[in-house]
Amino acid sequence: MDFALKLEACRQAVDAALAGLLESKSAEATQLAPLAGAMRYATLGGGKRFRPFLVVETAALFGVPQAKALAAAAAVECVHCYSLVHDDLPAMDDDDMRRGRPTVHKAFDEATAILAGDALLTLAFEVLGRPETDPDPLVRSELVLGLAHAGGWQGMVGGQMLDLLAEHTPTDLEGVIRIEALKTGALIEFSVIAGAILGRGGAVERQALARYARALGLAFQIADDLLDAEGDAAEVGKATAKDAASGKATFISLLGIEASRVKLKELEAEAIGALDAWDGRADVLREAARFVVQRRS
Amino acid sequence: MDFALKLEACRQAVDAALAGLLESKSAEATQLAPLAGAMRYATLGGGKRFRPFLVVETAALFGVPQAKALAAAAAVECVHCYSLVHDDLPAMDDDDMRRGRPTVHKAFDEATAILAGDALLTLAFEVLGRPETDPDPLVRSELVLGLAHAGGWQGMVGGQMLDLLAEHTPTDLEGVIRIEALKTGALIEFSVIAGAILGRGGAVERQALARYARALGLAFQIADDLLDAEGDAAEVGKATAKDAASGKATFISLLGIEASRVKLKELEAEAIGALDAWDGRADVLREAARFVVQRRS
Repeated sequence: MDFALKLEACRQAVDAALAGLLESKSAEATQLAPLAGAMRYATLGGGKRFRPFLVVETAALFGVPQAKALAAAAAVECVHCYSLVHDDLPAMDDDDMRRGRPTVHKAFDEATAILAGDALLTLAFEVLGRPETDPDPLVRSELVLGLAHAGGWQGMVGGQMLDLLAEHTPTDLEGVIRIEALKTGALIEFSVIAGAILGRGGAVERQALARYARALGLAFQIADDLLDAEGDAAEVGKATAKDAASGKATFISLLGIEASRVKLKELEAEAIGALDAWDGRADVLREAARFVVQRRS
Repeated sequence: MDFALKLEACRQAVDAALAGLLESKSAEATQLAPLAGAMRYATLGGGKRFRPFLVVETAALFGVPQAKALAAAAAVECVHCYSLVHDDLPAMDDDDMRRGRPTVHKAFDEATAILAGDALLTLAFEVLGRPETDPDPLVRSELVLGLAHAGGWQGMVGGQMLDLLAEHTPTDLEGVIRIEALKTGALIEFSVIAGAILGRGGAVERQALARYARALGLAFQIADDLLDAEGDAAEVGKATAKDAASGKATFISLLGIEASRVKLKELEAEAIGALDAWDGRADVLREAARFVVQRRS
């Protein structure tokens, strides 16, 4: 199957899983409608579902069928979506548009956006704690520990903090790489590791997959910076040229566009090389690395 | 041992456990110092540690030593502290003072407060996922599931949402009880259930403890409302008479002070009665119910 079709099919399955998680028939549903509405708006309004795709496809590498990886995949997406809601807040990046629509605090209000983010983060762990996610409690515990570590103060949240601080302090290339490794990389790496946890992968396999994910995550961010520098706001779905306007250090401002493209190709090769232990079964993950490098939105 | 001394001894043990969780020797520590500092400020700045106390003392009912319940107890406190940080934000309750000191967004800034809250919530699940918390992964998974359910959109976060909405809509007694059951009650109930999970308590025991916790949680909130109505700001450590000033429906505004006191005594009896299956071993939990009803700060 064509990679784009595979990604799209996974997106639809993940969207259905997320919609199921955010459905509520309880009596409270009416009064909690604004909160539930904001949570659905934050999660169901588009997005490539690239992180869930990595969970599903890495799990598939170990023979786990898509249906058995979807709950964990949806949990990762909940964390990604909560981080977007909070990062967009006026006190943070102050963004009005996301995925071509008003951000959650614009469509609802700030209090609802803060709470919807909190609730999505919490929901992710509720999903990972459920026996339906995986019958083995050790697998569930490992998923919880991994997601919390990747998403917390020494992972994604820490990265967002460093990113905010970097707006006021000069940052070199090493600093930008460190920020991105935490802010974007940690959750991408966990997505891949989650697939290995679901697939009962061993330590050596996890190490190879972590190398793949780290190269992929950095490539993802450089591609994002290139889109910001060169992309069209309508196509990207959010404001572009924002980094240059803010004077913030990025791969592009530090390396220039040409060297960034070279780095991107190196990371693609590194990611693909990390999968050498696998045969054709890893082709989808190899395609994913090519997709990240070539993406246009 | 005297109840106040027991509570104080537990508070010190919980403070030490929280301080340990928030210690970081990693290289990142320097750059993440503002975030780590806000997390420590939010968790280590006082507080009775009543929820951790419930975890520890309910676990003790099943013979679990304090040291083996402290990690789960600290995780519950992380969730409680994160909720205070976010609830105090300008977009939410807009409070400047908490526990006698400036709130986190006043002492730091709004972005740091949002991120510190997010990080504390995430840290709670990281702690629950760690094998050190309990060697049995099923226990860890149950703790995660229970905390996430109690803390999420159908628990504490939902309660805060309903509480914000109630500022603009008339609320009757049933509505106030429902809001408090979610906003405060859910986490108090989970604290008790967490002790039962750590102690491998059965379904019947958990049901009795849940009844105890629900009466206790409601009593806790009525006592809080009485403190708001009658307490001295310096003693309580935050602004008082705030509810009356905002015109918000509370137990006091709906029932009056005298009937609220009667209700409080009824709830105390209900909580104590729920513990009838236990002998003297449950005396500390019985004392906790009396403490909640009599507290002055």
